[in-house]
Amino acid sequence: MEPLSEQNPLLKKIRRAAAHGGLTDDGCAIAEGIHLVEEAIAAGCEVKVILITTPDRRFPEAKLLSEKSFRSIAGTETPQGILALVKPRQSSTDAILRGQAALAVVLDGIQDPGNAGSILRAAEAFGATGAVFLKGSVNPFNPKCIRASAGSIFRLPVIQADDLTAFEGMTLYAAMPRAEKSADQADFVKPCAVVIGSEGRGVRESVAARAAAVRIPTSNVESLNAAVAAGVLFYEARRQRDAAHASEKKAAR
Amino acid sequence: MEPLSEQNPLLKKIRRAAAHGGLTDDGCAIAEGIHLVEEAIAAGCEVKVILITTPDRRFPEAKLLSEKSFRSIAGTETPQGILALVKPRQSSTDAILRGQAALAVVLDGIQDPGNAGSILRAAEAFGATGAVFLKGSVNPFNPKCIRASAGSIFRLPVIQADDLTAFEGMTLYAAMPRAEKSADQADFVKPCAVVIGSEGRGVRESVAARAAAVRIPTSNVESLNAAVAAGVLFYEARRQRDAAHASEKKAAR
Repeated sequence: MEPLSEQNPLLKKIRRAAAHGGLTDDGCAIAEGIHLVEEAIAAGCEVKVILITTPDRRFPEAKLLSEKSFRSIAGTETPQGILALVKPRQSSTDAILRGQAALAVVLDGIQDPGNAGSILRAAEAFGATGAVFLKGSVNPFNPKCIRASAGSIFRLPVIQADDLTAFEGMTLYAAMPRAEKSADQADFVKPCAVVIGSEGRGVRESVAARAAAVRIPTSNVESLNAAVAAGVLFYEARRQRDAAHASEKKAAR
Repeated sequence: MEPLSEQNPLLKKIRRAAAHGGLTDDGCAIAEGIHLVEEAIAAGCEVKVILITTPDRRFPEAKLLSEKSFRSIAGTETPQGILALVKPRQSSTDAILRGQAALAVVLDGIQDPGNAGSILRAAEAFGATGAVFLKGSVNPFNPKCIRASAGSIFRLPVIQADDLTAFEGMTLYAAMPRAEKSADQADFVKPCAVVIGSEGRGVRESVAARAAAVRIPTSNVESLNAAVAAGVLFYEARRQRDAAHASEKKAAR
């Protein structure tokens, strides 16, 4: 099998997507590294093509690429020599926001793709129903965000939205350094959404106006890394939900 | 005032420290950006020199540098044009591990400087008494770690250690994905240390053998970003300590 030339349209398409930090022109996400490729397959996403530098029996239909060509499309410093183009699943607002167990994460202006990906990973870990990227946030399908999500982006419903219209009637919490109510005093058992603002500018005023402010009980330090803050709030939500579930079960006996 | 030449020994010293990711030869930490410079000063650290591209009345003794020279020492893509060499405070094992309120974080093989810095930031935020970087972890004074710590590294006691000798007699908790005991079942009120392993390899066996395993209650996802995991455990410790403190106060009435 002849390796693809560096001028192959497929490689150009990938380089273009990587450069602008999003999906390819035909709507595919770049999953680089064996772990992400396996996660995408396990999640049931449609894999359009796999590019590989060394033939691998697990991927008989993979297209071969020279190491040099691979480096021209890779986003990592020490590429593993495998990359897939993956059709992300369609996510709906309803799947994320409706239902008694709704727990959405709202990214408000998070621009660092590593933080955004870590937020998705933490959100899935603690049982969130999905993520909403508000305008001004990084593209959820930025290859760095996909990597930092460690595959969560292929499982967790993720949508982009211009504003908070879809959240009408829903409780929104926003982490704010000087809020009166601390996270453990907020009710995360009911359907709700948690807004995480950018580290530089915090939650935008227009968003904060619609949300109940909650404080993560910290001292000395003004704020946390955005992904750490998100992780702590989802952990608190999970803790409350587990406790509510346990007492419901007890009452039912 | 004449700007420093690009061949000035001071600039060479900084480039060398940045290249090997640690302190300068004479033991100074690189604090880049106005926020970090201010944090270092506010923390009472000795500032050896400030380098600046535009004269600033707040820093009358700063040395002037051309933008080009500054880019040659900067670690950020869009440098703010200010950098200080700061003598970190001496930290002792005792300050971190002794005392009734001891809550240490142990970094076991964390190599990503961004994660290490975010861990320090979260540790300080939730009241940890200090951090111990075990052999095989990134240098705590890696400029990227300093930046991600958002200044916590200038306030929180931080030491490097070859092994766990200093922890004799102390309770160690290690976050492990399949531990029986969940974090909220562990007792974080007593003096203790929390081990955070690297994302790739987790907590080393020799360290895990000395520690009580605790599980962060996650689903679907094998593990969390190391800084998110650390943040969640410190939050849980803080929650337990605040509750214990509140009930002590109540009993004393």
